[in-house]
Amino acid sequence: MKNKIQGLADLDRVIHEPARLMLAMILSTVESADFLFLQRETGLTKGNLSVHLGKLEKAEYVKIEKKFKGKYPLTICRLTPSGRRALSSYRSRMDKALGKRRGA
Amino acid sequence: MKNKIQGLADLDRVIHEPARLMLAMILSTVESADFLFLQRETGLTKGNLSVHLGKLEKAEYVKIEKKFKGKYPLTICRLTPSGRRALSSYRSRMDKALGKRRGA
Repeated sequence: MKNKIQGLADLDRVIHEPARLMLAMILSTVESADFLFLQRETGLTKGNLSVHLGKLEKAEYVKIEKKFKGKYPLTICRLTPSGRRALSSYRSRMDKALGKRRGA
Repeated sequence: MKNKIQGLADLDRVIHEPARLMLAMILSTVESADFLFLQRETGLTKGNLSVHLGKLEKAEYVKIEKKFKGKYPLTICRLTPSGRRALSSYRSRMDKALGKRRGA
C-alpha cells in the first residue's frame, strides 16, 4: 500500500494539471493537432490553451510549429516521445494508486 | 471522447492535489487514522500534513478530533460521507478520462 500511495507524491506536475492532462491525452491519439481543434476538444479559452501549451512546450512534452495554410496561420502541436513517456508513466502511476482499492 | 476528456476540466481540485489524494485514499480504507499513522503512510512532513488535512477539513471531506491517550495527544482523522463521495466521483472521472485510450 505504502509505495503505491506514496507514488502520488512525486507525480509529474506538468502532466497532473487537468488542462494539460486533457491536452496530453488528446495529443497522444493523433499525429498532430492544430490549435483550433485543441480548443474545440478541450473547451479551453484561447488564452488558457496558449498558456498550457506553452508549459508543455517548455517541458519538451509538446512540439509546436507555426505554419500557413494559404493565408491562414496554423499552430500545429505534437506530443514528443518524451511527452508520450511522461503521460504513460503518469497514467500507470495513477492507475496503481487509484486502482489499489477499487470498489473499497 | 470529448465528454470524457472534458470531464477533466472540472475535477475536484481539493482531491486532485497529490498529497490530499494520498490522504483521501488512505482514509477511505480505514475507519479513522491518527496523525502519526498518516505521516508515516504518506511520507509528508508534519507541516505539509497539517496544511493538507486543514484543507480537507475546510472542504468538510475530513473530520478531525483532538483526543488524549493517557497524556499523549492524538489527532484522529476520518473521511466524512461527503469526502467519500468526492473521492469516488474523482476516481470514476479519472478512470473514464485516462482509461479511454488505455494501451494507446
